[in-house]
Amino acid sequence: MTAPAIILSHPQLGENIGAAARAMKNFGLSDLRLVNPRDGWPNIKANHMAAGAGDIVDKAKLFGSLKHALADLQFVIAATARERGAAKPIYTPAEAARQLHAQVNEGTSCGILFGNERAGLENDEVSIATAILTIPTAEFWSLNLGQSVMLLCYEWFRGLDETAPVRIDHGPIAKKATRQEIIELFEHLESELLASGFLYPPHKEAPMIRNLRAFLNRTDMTDQEVRTLRGIIKALAHGKFRRPPPARA
Amino acid sequence: MTAPAIILSHPQLGENIGAAARAMKNFGLSDLRLVNPRDGWPNIKANHMAAGAGDIVDKAKLFGSLKHALADLQFVIAATARERGAAKPIYTPAEAARQLHAQVNEGTSCGILFGNERAGLENDEVSIATAILTIPTAEFWSLNLGQSVMLLCYEWFRGLDETAPVRIDHGPIAKKATRQEIIELFEHLESELLASGFLYPPHKEAPMIRNLRAFLNRTDMTDQEVRTLRGIIKALAHGKFRRPPPARA
Repeated sequence: MTAPAIILSHPQLGENIGAAARAMKNFGLSDLRLVNPRDGWPNIKANHMAAGAGDIVDKAKLFGSLKHALADLQFVIAATARERGAAKPIYTPAEAARQLHAQVNEGTSCGILFGNERAGLENDEVSIATAILTIPTAEFWSLNLGQSVMLLCYEWFRGLDETAPVRIDHGPIAKKATRQEIIELFEHLESELLASGFLYPPHKEAPMIRNLRAFLNRTDMTDQEVRTLRGIIKALAHGKFRRPPPARA
Repeated sequence: MTAPAIILSHPQLGENIGAAARAMKNFGLSDLRLVNPRDGWPNIKANHMAAGAGDIVDKAKLFGSLKHALADLQFVIAATARERGAAKPIYTPAEAARQLHAQVNEGTSCGILFGNERAGLENDEVSIATAILTIPTAEFWSLNLGQSVMLLCYEWFRGLDETAPVRIDHGPIAKKATRQEIIELFEHLESELLASGFLYPPHKEAPMIRNLRAFLNRTDMTDQEVRTLRGIIKALAHGKFRRPPPARA
């Protein structure tokens, strides 16, 4: 499957080209096309900003006109902040990514077109694209070019990514505690608290225990954490180096 | 409703602080906190990079330790690329935003914590946070700090944004054509094509018309576009300046 090309029309700052390249590599895109970059090409600032994505910068294709940069592409979405009665579909970034995946899955060659830092895309440039995307913003709508590219690359990658929304990494050894381990912890703690006089007065003992158990259950403990807590209880109650608390000054 | 604070621990480059501020303003966040920025504070490069978000930079709060920067916050998610058996929930950016919205809706004060450009967050810094977020990437996982902040601000804003995934902006005047306008266009075009000899041979006339109508229907025309197309048909068939096509060289 071929990820979309990223086409930057008349980009001004090498830093933004490099940032775009880095974002592309972060999210699995590689076809970077530049139409008349203002400061010439190659641009050392682009390489510097790309950090580990220098290969994307080095492989970037240079074009003298947008027409040539888009020639082989079949489905092109233009990124623009201003909507101007273009009478073509305007997508959110997430929807643009969905459309691009659908097109790519059918074997269509795709690209996402960005204008320059100062003025974005010209109307004539937008007119060559199949569709438009705009990035919804709060009242300050002027996005940095490198960040806009990044956001679309991110949305593209999201369509491929199967990372679960929530994971808990307990590390290589620990596993979730069993109910037996949890119950033995409860009983250990409660017997020491009873002995210490904490569970007092007697008519409050049952609700205090229920609250403590609810608190401990919320932590969703590992077996290792149960062992650590039992060690803590033992140390607090009977530790061999236990001393009386220091006198207040 | 209070958007989350963005906390940058020991950030190195003013450019990245400025980029973070710009992204915050793009997406409606404003509480920027800096823990010991390497190059001191204020930093003219941050103001320069922030473009129209200079107010976020100017209002940024400076702290001498992470402990103080987080003191008033109740729910903090740490952004880190490396997972290290932290035994706390690890969210995707989208899930982190969902969690933050849920917390903010309950009146909880929230923050998102980012480490520095070189090494990210220390394990000790992560240990103060309630949860972790990682940004899923392709094999090149090293994200720019400003872009990481941008992405989380974007995901936060998405939870508030009601932009429809697909819109069509036909401009202030045009509206979708009615079926009567469309049918009259079909009949106009087909009568001219019949007169011109294009719909030939006769047994192909019906399927050719069906294909043409399908093609035109796909454009989902406005009333203005119908009028334009009818003018084009008239001009091509009967235009007063019609001339024979130029001879080939």
